[in-house]
Amino acid sequence: MVMVNRSMLVNLRRLISNNAKSTNPAMQFPCLDKLEEITAQLKQKNRPGSCSISDPTSSPSNEPVYGKVQSGFKLFESNEPLFLDYGGVLPQFRIAFETWGKLNKNKSNAVLVHTGLSASSHARSSIDNPQHGWWEKFIGPGNPALDTDKYFVICTNVLGGCYGSTGPSSQDPADELPYATRFPMLSIQDIVRAQERLIRTQFGIQKLYASVGSSMGGMQSLAFGQLFPDSVEKIVSVSACARSHPSSIAMRHAQRQVLMADTNWSRGFYYPSSSEPNKIPPHIGMKLAREIATVTYRSGPEWESRFGTERLNEETSPVLCPDFLIETYLDHQGEKFSLEYDANSFLYLSKTMDLFDLSRSHANRSHRRRIKAAEEYEKGSFSEKRLSDLPYKAAKKRRTTTVEEAREDLRIGMEPLRNKEILVVGVRSDGLFPYWQQREIVELLGGDSKVTHVELDETQSLYGHDTFLLDVDHVGGSIGKFLTQ
Amino acid sequence: MVMVNRSMLVNLRRLISNNAKSTNPAMQFPCLDKLEEITAQLKQKNRPGSCSISDPTSSPSNEPVYGKVQSGFKLFESNEPLFLDYGGVLPQFRIAFETWGKLNKNKSNAVLVHTGLSASSHARSSIDNPQHGWWEKFIGPGNPALDTDKYFVICTNVLGGCYGSTGPSSQDPADELPYATRFPMLSIQDIVRAQERLIRTQFGIQKLYASVGSSMGGMQSLAFGQLFPDSVEKIVSVSACARSHPSSIAMRHAQRQVLMADTNWSRGFYYPSSSEPNKIPPHIGMKLAREIATVTYRSGPEWESRFGTERLNEETSPVLCPDFLIETYLDHQGEKFSLEYDANSFLYLSKTMDLFDLSRSHANRSHRRRIKAAEEYEKGSFSEKRLSDLPYKAAKKRRTTTVEEAREDLRIGMEPLRNKEILVVGVRSDGLFPYWQQREIVELLGGDSKVTHVELDETQSLYGHDTFLLDVDHVGGSIGKFLTQ
Repeated sequence: MVMVNRSMLVNLRRLISNNAKSTNPAMQFPCLDKLEEITAQLKQKNRPGSCSISDPTSSPSNEPVYGKVQSGFKLFESNEPLFLDYGGVLPQFRIAFETWGKLNKNKSNAVLVHTGLSASSHARSSIDNPQHGWWEKFIGPGNPALDTDKYFVICTNVLGGCYGSTGPSSQDPADELPYATRFPMLSIQDIVRAQERLIRTQFGIQKLYASVGSSMGGMQSLAFGQLFPDSVEKIVSVSACARSHPSSIAMRHAQRQVLMADTNWSRGFYYPSSSEPNKIPPHIGMKLAREIATVTYRSGPEWESRFGTERLNEETSPVLCPDFLIETYLDHQGEKFSLEYDANSFLYLSKTMDLFDLSRSHANRSHRRRIKAAEEYEKGSFSEKRLSDLPYKAAKKRRTTTVEEAREDLRIGMEPLRNKEILVVGVRSDGLFPYWQQREIVELLGGDSKVTHVELDETQSLYGHDTFLLDVDHVGGSIGKFLTQ
Repeated sequence: MVMVNRSMLVNLRRLISNNAKSTNPAMQFPCLDKLEEITAQLKQKNRPGSCSISDPTSSPSNEPVYGKVQSGFKLFESNEPLFLDYGGVLPQFRIAFETWGKLNKNKSNAVLVHTGLSASSHARSSIDNPQHGWWEKFIGPGNPALDTDKYFVICTNVLGGCYGSTGPSSQDPADELPYATRFPMLSIQDIVRAQERLIRTQFGIQKLYASVGSSMGGMQSLAFGQLFPDSVEKIVSVSACARSHPSSIAMRHAQRQVLMADTNWSRGFYYPSSSEPNKIPPHIGMKLAREIATVTYRSGPEWESRFGTERLNEETSPVLCPDFLIETYLDHQGEKFSLEYDANSFLYLSKTMDLFDLSRSHANRSHRRRIKAAEEYEKGSFSEKRLSDLPYKAAKKRRTTTVEEAREDLRIGMEPLRNKEILVVGVRSDGLFPYWQQREIVELLGGDSKVTHVELDETQSLYGHDTFLLDVDHVGGSIGKFLTQ
């Protein structure tokens, strides 16, 4: 109601300013008009509370994309509590998963595919869900990357996600309201522990043939090897890292702060309820966050060849709404995503990526916190503990360990990965997980002869970080070759 | 009033959620609390309408920073209309400027220093304003870079800025209300034409000894040479380009969209007036925009050595407010800037940087539009023209000229710069105006022997784009050497 009034006021003001005497014409803002329209449409709709929200701007024919995706998966439910690296607990959780191919008799042909931040378990089409998956061209019968005639491929929606697995939009069993920002912070290792419980309990798999992932999925793949070195034969990590870099943290920080500044985010409590049925998700913050993310997913050279610095219309006076081709591209990417994914899942998993760290000290601290969480949970005192509100009081201005010490810490932490067969793929045009972070993984593993390192140069891919989604020949080919050698 | 109620509601909700039964504790958001406090403080204050706004979070002793800066400059006022490259007009304008050193008798020792996006004319301290300037260490008596014993150094606040020069926060003479987003779009060449009018009219200088600038200032420096090749002896361009790159446009696009999404921006009409005295500037949008900008100003390796991936407190559970050292740094940079600069000036100049292009076709189109604007202005029909609202309807998905054609267009456009003495400085750690854009300038100038190219490698500077503000030895030294050779 407040919003509609504001919008009316803005339009009235614009009308006045347009008609008032002014030297130059007032600028128009069609991009803001559109956001206000979407807000108004959302307020009029009865919507579900999670990722299955349909995009009000798309045509009815392709509307319920994620609804369809959700129809195809299976659920693994665990009622054993999962104690978490940062001291939280999930008393119970579920993991959405899909499989392709057939598990062989001695259960030795399973390949676990890990997803990036925003993907669902729907890596490939299936009978249950014929829609194309996010890695459609990398998985299938006879496929040179993941051949489902040979492998039993499993893909899960990550813990913390919103495509069927337990995440911030799920109900807290304590009060049956959405967790929202009462959801505990996760580590990549927590996500992997939940997956490991699934493959062991659901399928009785003692040892994966391979753990395969790109981006956040590559982090999971390495973490799986670190936590369960005896439960995996081969490890594939594409465009990931051994520990997040401050540059990547900076870019994800910007995305999170922008999203959190959207007043509709409401500190995470934006899910409609019977008492507040008209709440809407922070679609503007999500759009902006995705635009920033998109800048990090592709590469400058690709944009130069696709868009250059051309504007939609060189003859018009430039405007502050999208005007250059590159701007309309980013705007479109942002808008498409703005209602596809749960904002809280995005925030939590974005932070989880920042926190990724294979170092020994990180593992030690996490271990202590998990033990403590388990003890408190047993005593029933768990829910009394509050997150510290200390962190914002900046006392520390510079790092306290040296670069060399931090590197040695990482090297020791990665010892469980030694002597494993590992494929590390880097892409020169990737600015988010740069090629030198891939080289670093290889070096930290001690230049082991079991480590295969592939680096794609600019003549092979200009797709930047997104190469793992697009380059079937080089990325897919390298994976296929590594798995069969 | 609405904001205060909202804040109360949020606090109430938080209180309820904290006390309600929940498995894990609710997260706290001290960073959002702080933004709400600033908003509340701004609403209680009587504030001036432009850059002289003081930062409510800083102590009284260093509060009126930009007020002080503004006290030291002189004003050049022009009542001749300035017709603009994108078809607009400024019937009159003023340029704030400061000078150091003494203009010699034959007026041959003037050096025009161009600023980056957000700087004022206060490049160095002076009797009128003893506060340190933004290039304090690069200018002064006997200084190895710009020696004021030899040179008469002039620095202006750019047209479109908010430190004394005419910009969006200035009054439109048509109705004596702030231009706001009725301000006409500017090109870098427009900014330079205003400067040229100043040096010719105010000082009677026919030919500058040098035009010197970095970042957006480097764009101005090159544009000065393109427009007035006979009015400048030597040209210095540090970390600039011949035409903006889609990657840089993408990063600035993100900043603008984030700022425009702040509801306090009010489509540019946020200046308090007698009828609406309680308007406040979009401080949250400005903070976020500056955080994104800061990511592009420094380099990853610098952050690795300063911050690494350390958190303020490794023992606490991570939060979504700033937590990593790199986050608190970005947060601080954003907050510091959020009330220092006019949001509309930021938006317009950011777009002006995107539009920078030395190509021939750009110059031709601009020429036609300026002629047309002058004709319309004479006929009195000017104010009837409205900016097209076509651009947002994306019809064009890909560039229509080839990379090679665009490059040739640029080469021809840069012909006036041939045979000029030009220093081009690039920095390997700069991701915003990369070293290869500097090499491109050199190549486009035809490998002329009068072109001096300096490239700083990572052992010389890790400061990224900000190197031009910090590196007195390499940047300052190269400039001084070039000017005296």
